[in-house]
Amino acid sequence: MLSQCSNSIGLSPTSPSGGGRLSAISPSSAFAFAMGNDKLDDIDRELCLPQHVEMHSFRDAIDVNYQRMGLTGEELSGVPLEDLRSAARQLVDALRLRSEYMELVGGVFPSTTRNFLIGKYPSNLPKCRRKNTETSASMSYNPPEPPKDHWELDQPLPIYEQIFDLERHRGTVAVIDKSTKEIFEPLKKFYITREKYLKDFNWLNRICNEGPLKTFCYRRLTFLQTHFQLHVLLNEQLESAEQRSVPHRDFYNIRKVDTHIHAASSMNHKHLLRFIKKRMRTDADEVVQLKNGRPITMREVFEKMGVSPYDLSVDMLDVHADRNTFHRFDKFNAKYNPVGQNDLREIFIKTDNYVNGRYFAQVLKEVFIDVEENKYQNMEPRLSIYGRDKDEWDKLANWAITHDVWSQNVRWMIQIPRLYDVYRSKNLLLNFDEFLSNIFSPLFEVTNDPNTHPELHRFLQHVSGLDSVDDESKHEHVPFTKDCPEPVDYTSDENPSYSYYLFYMYMNLASLNAFRQLRGLNTFALRPHCGEAGHVNHLSVTYLTSESIAHGLLLRKVPVLQYLFYLAQIGMAMSPLSNNHLFLTYHRNPMPDFLMKGLNVSLSTDDPLQFHITKEALMEEYSIAAQVWKLSSSDMCELARNSVLQSGFEDRIKLYWLGPNYREEGVLGNDVARTNVPDIRVSFRHESLVNELCNLFKALSF
Amino acid sequence: MLSQCSNSIGLSPTSPSGGGRLSAISPSSAFAFAMGNDKLDDIDRELCLPQHVEMHSFRDAIDVNYQRMGLTGEELSGVPLEDLRSAARQLVDALRLRSEYMELVGGVFPSTTRNFLIGKYPSNLPKCRRKNTETSASMSYNPPEPPKDHWELDQPLPIYEQIFDLERHRGTVAVIDKSTKEIFEPLKKFYITREKYLKDFNWLNRICNEGPLKTFCYRRLTFLQTHFQLHVLLNEQLESAEQRSVPHRDFYNIRKVDTHIHAASSMNHKHLLRFIKKRMRTDADEVVQLKNGRPITMREVFEKMGVSPYDLSVDMLDVHADRNTFHRFDKFNAKYNPVGQNDLREIFIKTDNYVNGRYFAQVLKEVFIDVEENKYQNMEPRLSIYGRDKDEWDKLANWAITHDVWSQNVRWMIQIPRLYDVYRSKNLLLNFDEFLSNIFSPLFEVTNDPNTHPELHRFLQHVSGLDSVDDESKHEHVPFTKDCPEPVDYTSDENPSYSYYLFYMYMNLASLNAFRQLRGLNTFALRPHCGEAGHVNHLSVTYLTSESIAHGLLLRKVPVLQYLFYLAQIGMAMSPLSNNHLFLTYHRNPMPDFLMKGLNVSLSTDDPLQFHITKEALMEEYSIAAQVWKLSSSDMCELARNSVLQSGFEDRIKLYWLGPNYREEGVLGNDVARTNVPDIRVSFRHESLVNELCNLFKALSF
Repeated sequence: MLSQCSNSIGLSPTSPSGGGRLSAISPSSAFAFAMGNDKLDDIDRELCLPQHVEMHSFRDAIDVNYQRMGLTGEELSGVPLEDLRSAARQLVDALRLRSEYMELVGGVFPSTTRNFLIGKYPSNLPKCRRKNTETSASMSYNPPEPPKDHWELDQPLPIYEQIFDLERHRGTVAVIDKSTKEIFEPLKKFYITREKYLKDFNWLNRICNEGPLKTFCYRRLTFLQTHFQLHVLLNEQLESAEQRSVPHRDFYNIRKVDTHIHAASSMNHKHLLRFIKKRMRTDADEVVQLKNGRPITMREVFEKMGVSPYDLSVDMLDVHADRNTFHRFDKFNAKYNPVGQNDLREIFIKTDNYVNGRYFAQVLKEVFIDVEENKYQNMEPRLSIYGRDKDEWDKLANWAITHDVWSQNVRWMIQIPRLYDVYRSKNLLLNFDEFLSNIFSPLFEVTNDPNTHPELHRFLQHVSGLDSVDDESKHEHVPFTKDCPEPVDYTSDENPSYSYYLFYMYMNLASLNAFRQLRGLNTFALRPHCGEAGHVNHLSVTYLTSESIAHGLLLRKVPVLQYLFYLAQIGMAMSPLSNNHLFLTYHRNPMPDFLMKGLNVSLSTDDPLQFHITKEALMEEYSIAAQVWKLSSSDMCELARNSVLQSGFEDRIKLYWLGPNYREEGVLGNDVARTNVPDIRVSFRHESLVNELCNLFKALSF
Repeated sequence: MLSQCSNSIGLSPTSPSGGGRLSAISPSSAFAFAMGNDKLDDIDRELCLPQHVEMHSFRDAIDVNYQRMGLTGEELSGVPLEDLRSAARQLVDALRLRSEYMELVGGVFPSTTRNFLIGKYPSNLPKCRRKNTETSASMSYNPPEPPKDHWELDQPLPIYEQIFDLERHRGTVAVIDKSTKEIFEPLKKFYITREKYLKDFNWLNRICNEGPLKTFCYRRLTFLQTHFQLHVLLNEQLESAEQRSVPHRDFYNIRKVDTHIHAASSMNHKHLLRFIKKRMRTDADEVVQLKNGRPITMREVFEKMGVSPYDLSVDMLDVHADRNTFHRFDKFNAKYNPVGQNDLREIFIKTDNYVNGRYFAQVLKEVFIDVEENKYQNMEPRLSIYGRDKDEWDKLANWAITHDVWSQNVRWMIQIPRLYDVYRSKNLLLNFDEFLSNIFSPLFEVTNDPNTHPELHRFLQHVSGLDSVDDESKHEHVPFTKDCPEPVDYTSDENPSYSYYLFYMYMNLASLNAFRQLRGLNTFALRPHCGEAGHVNHLSVTYLTSESIAHGLLLRKVPVLQYLFYLAQIGMAMSPLSNNHLFLTYHRNPMPDFLMKGLNVSLSTDDPLQFHITKEALMEEYSIAAQVWKLSSSDMCELARNSVLQSGFEDRIKLYWLGPNYREEGVLGNDVARTNVPDIRVSFRHESLVNELCNLFKALSF
C-alpha cells in the first residue's frame, strides 16, 4: 500500500502553470496523498505531516484497506484560482438550492453533502471511524412476513379531528384552516411560488452555460472517471477477494429493484401472447367491450381481426420495438397495441375498461408471481393517472383492491402522461388547472378526510411516488416564463413545457406531502422521466424538483448538471436497452461512464414487453450491460444496491435488505454480507465524494 | 417492384475504367437487372431483352416477390479482366478441392455450388420454379416420440459376415481384407496421403496471400455486405410482413440448436452452485475420492476447503470469466475449477472419477431437462476423449449408458484436446501414433465388430462428430511440412501443429466414415474449433478438412478464405460472448458482418458456466446479439435455421424441424411455417450465391 502524505506548500514542487496563485489551495484537499512518496526524503516527510494532518489522514474507515491514490503539489483542479473560486460559489449555491427544494418536498438529500452545506464538514469530518462488521452480519436477512390483509381492509380508516377547507389556489389546493380562513399555518411555508421557482430555474440554466464553470465541472468529472479507472486497476483483485470472502452472498441473492418499469409493459411479449391465448380459450364468450351500445365478446374481437388464438404469434402481436422505432417515439407508442389493434390494448392492458381491468390485473399478478418466486427481485411498476377526469384515482384504487393486485415485492408508482394538449383539444378540459385538479385534488381530499375516498386512502399506502412521462423530444411551443398564464388561465391547446408541468407537480407535491406528513401518512417522491431526449433544461427542472429521475442520458451534454447530479447523488434509473431502441445506441450510452464517475445510477427495464427477449427481463438488462461494458461483479452489485437506495420501498424494508446502518455515511452504511458490494468500493466512493466537496468548500474561503 | 432487365453490350454506358476490356463480361451476370429502368426507352428494352434472356430472368422462384436490385453496364467485379480470370480459376480450383475433400470424408457440400462445379450450372439453372407453399404447411411439426429404449439395449448388436484385420498404417488404421491381405478394395480411395494434403494445403495458403485475389475477394465480400444492406433497406417491411403472416410461428417456437457447447460447462454457474450445495446436503458422507489410497468423503472435501455448503456463493465458486481472462486462455481454463479447486472439478464435472461420473451425469441431466422443457432448444454438448488411454471410449460409453445421460434434444460431440505434448512429457505416450491410436483404433474396432465394444457401439449412434479443442494462440514450434515425422516417429514432446493434428483427424475420419458407411452405420463430422485465435492458416486447414467450424473470428483477416467459406457455405458456430471474454470484444466481433455477407453462421454459447448470467444461456446469447447489433426477427430466425442445418441431428429430424423439402436449393428448401425465415430472405441469399458463382464460372470461359 502507498502510504499517505501531502507536501506542504513550501516543499511541494512548483506546479508548471499558475502554481503561485494556487499555492494556498493545496492543503484543502482531503486526499492530497502522495503517490510514490517513498522517494521523498525524511525531511520532506517531517515537514509535510504536521500541518493539516487532520485533513490528510481522513479516511472513510481506518480498517478498510486498499490502494488509495493521492496527488502532491499545489495544483488542485487545473483551472485558475479565480475560476475555481467562482465555480465553487456557484456549485455550492446550486447545491443549497436543491437542498432547500428537497426539504420542502420531503425528498432525500445525501447527508454528506448536507453536512458540508450546514458547515459541519469539512472541519468535523469524522476521524478514525471503524467499521464494526460483527454485529450486522449476524442479523436475520428477511423482512417480516407480509400481512394477510394486503390493503388493511380490516383496519378502520383514520379519523382526524381537524378537517380543513380545500380551495384551489394558483394551480394547487390551499388547505384552509376553518377558524382563521387562511392557509393552515404549519403548511404555509410549503407553498412555493412560481416566481421563486422561475428565478432559481433561470439562474441554474445560466450557470449551466457559463464557460469557466463548464470547464471546471468537465475536468472534475474526467478526474472522477480516471480516478475510478486507476482504482479498479489497483484494487480489482482486492474487491473481488472481498466479495468471495462473504459467505452465501452473491449477485444472484442480493436485492435488486427494477426502478423504472411500466406496468402495462412489465410482462415480456411471449408472456402477453401466452396470456392472450389462454384467455381466448377460457373466456371466448365473455363480453369484453361495448361498441355503440352493442356488447362484443372476446371471440368476436378475434374474429374481426381474422386471427385464431392458436395462430397468434409474437410476430403478429408485434409489440416489440425494432429498428423502426429508433427516434420514432410515435411508432414506439403504437407498439403498445397488440396486433396493431387498440382493442387488444384496451381489453388486456388497461385498468379502466368494460371488464374493469380484470385481464390486466390477472397478467400483472402473473408477473408478480414471477418476481416473488425470484425472491430477490422487486419492482416499481407505473400505473397511469391521466388527469382527464376527477374519478380516475378512485377507479384505479378500486381496480387494485378489487383484484388484489398486490405483492410484497412491488411498490406502485403513478405516471402522469403530459397529455393536457390532447384532452384540451378534445374539449375534455377547460384549462390546465382542471388537469392539475383532476390529478391532485383527490389526493388532498383523501388526506384531509380518508372517508371521502376510502379505497384511495388504502391504495395510496402502496404508492411511493409520481412519474411524469411522454416524448421529451417534442418541441415545446410555450416556454415557461413569468408571462406564461397561470394554470387557470392556461386555456390554449398547445402543450405547456416540461418545466411548467414539473413545477406544478412539484409544488402540488410539496404542500401535499407536508399535509400528509402532518397526518402521519406516507408521502410521495417525484421521480419523472427526464433527459431521455429533448431539451437539456429538463435536467435543470428535475435538479430542482425531483428526488430522482428515469434516463438522464442528456447529462452527458451538460457537465455542470452532471457534476451537480454527482454531488447531490441524485438517483438515475437508466435503461440502456430502452435507449438502444429509441434514442441512443447501446455503445454510446453514458451509463458505464456515469457509473465510473460515481453518479448514483441503477439499471431498469422500462418496457420488457417492447425490449426484452428472455423470461428474466431485469437479469437480461444486467447481463447485457455486464457483457458489453465488461462490468465486474462489484459494479453489478453496486448498481443493485443503488437501485434499492433509489427505490420507494419503506425504510424498514431497506433496513433488512441493506443492513441496519444503511443510512450511515460511507462505508459504515454498507453491509457487505447483504449487499455484496465490497467495503473497498463504498469507501472509495465516499472518499471521492468528500474529496470533491472539500475542494469546493475550501475554495469558498479563499 | 423494379422490373428486371439488362443492357446488352452495345447499349450499356461505357464503364469509366477498363470498360473495353471488360465488355465481354457483362452478360455473364445472372443479376444484371436494371435499377430505375423505367427511364429506359422502349428501344432499349427491346434490344436488351432477347440476348441472354435466360440468364437475366433467373429468379429463385418466380412467385417470391420483393425489391431486387441489379446492376447495368459492363463492369462486373471492379478488377481488371486478367485478375478476374485468374481469381476465378483459383477460386474454382479451391472449391473443387473442398468438394473433393468433403466427398472423401462424407461431409456436406452445398448442392448449388456443386452443380456449378459439375458443369450443370449456370447453363441449366432452373427456370420458373414455383414455391409450392400449400403441401408443406399442412404437415405435422413434431418428430415422432423418442424411443423408450434410449440406447437400443434391447436390440441385438449387428453381426457382420466379413470381419477385417486392422493394422496401424501411417497414423491410421488400415482395414485389411483377410483374403487379399490388402486394404479392402472399396475403402482404398478413402486413404488420403499426407503428401497430397500438404500440396493442397500449401497451394491454398499461397493463394490466400496473393494480392490480386485478396483484392478480388475483398471487393466481392464488400459487395455482398452492401448488397444485403440495400436489401434490408428495401425489403425489411416485406420480410417482417411475411413473418407476421405465418400463423403460430415466431422466434420462440422455431428450432434452435446450440451448435457449440461444452458439456462440462453447459450449466450456468448459479446452476452448478445449486447442484453442489444440494449434493453436499444429501451425499455428505459419500466417498468421492481416493487420495493416496485413503477414501475421502464429500464432507471432508468441503472441510478441507473450509467452506460450508450454505456459505458457498457464486463469487466463491469463481468459475465465471471476468476481465482478467481476456487473452489469458490459461486463466480461463483455470476457471473450470470451482473454488479454484481441481478436486471439485474432478468430482462434479468429470465422467471418469471415483464416483464414475455420477454427479456430472446428474447435473447434465438437469440441463437436459431444462432444454427439453423449452422444447424448441437443442444442443450438441462436447464430451472429451483425450487419447491418453485406449479404454477412454469404453469408459465414456459406459458412463453415458449407465447413467442414461440421454435426451432427444441432444446429440453428442466428442472433443479431442490437443494435449499430446502434455501426455508425452509425462511419458504417458510414446509417440503421436499412440495418441491417434488411442482415439481412433477403438472406433475402427467397434465398426469392424460391434461385439468388441458393445456399449461403445450403442453410444456412437448418438455421437454426431468430433471437435478439436485447445488454445489456438499457442505458438506452434513444429510446422507441418514434408520433413515432419510420421506419427509413429513423432516422439518429440513439442506439440505438433494444428495442421498436423487436423490432418490426422481428417484422414482417420475419412477411412473410418467410409468403413462405417459400408457397415450401414452413422458417420462422424469433423467440426473443430478454428480461427478463434492464433495463426490464420488454421482456417485453410479446416477449409480442406472440416465440415464446419466453431468460432472463425480470424476469417475477418483472410478475405480469400472468407469468400471461399461463403461460396462453400461452411458452417460456423460463433460465440460472441465467449470471444468477448477471451479474444475479441463484443463490438468488434465479425458475426454481424458475416451474417450480412451471407456466410453460414449460427449462434452458440460455448460455456454457459463461464459466460452467461441468466437461466437461459442460448436465449441470452441471441438476445445480446439482437440488442447490440440490432438484428431483426428475420436475422434471428435465419441464425436459428442455420444452426439446425449445421447441427448433427439426423436428416429425418431436420425434415420435421425445417420442412420436408429442406434439402432443396434456395427458397424451395424453406418452409416459413416451420423456420419463420421469410422466403424473401432465403430467396435473396440463394440469388446472391448464384450471382457470385455465375460471375466466377463465366469468367473461367473468357
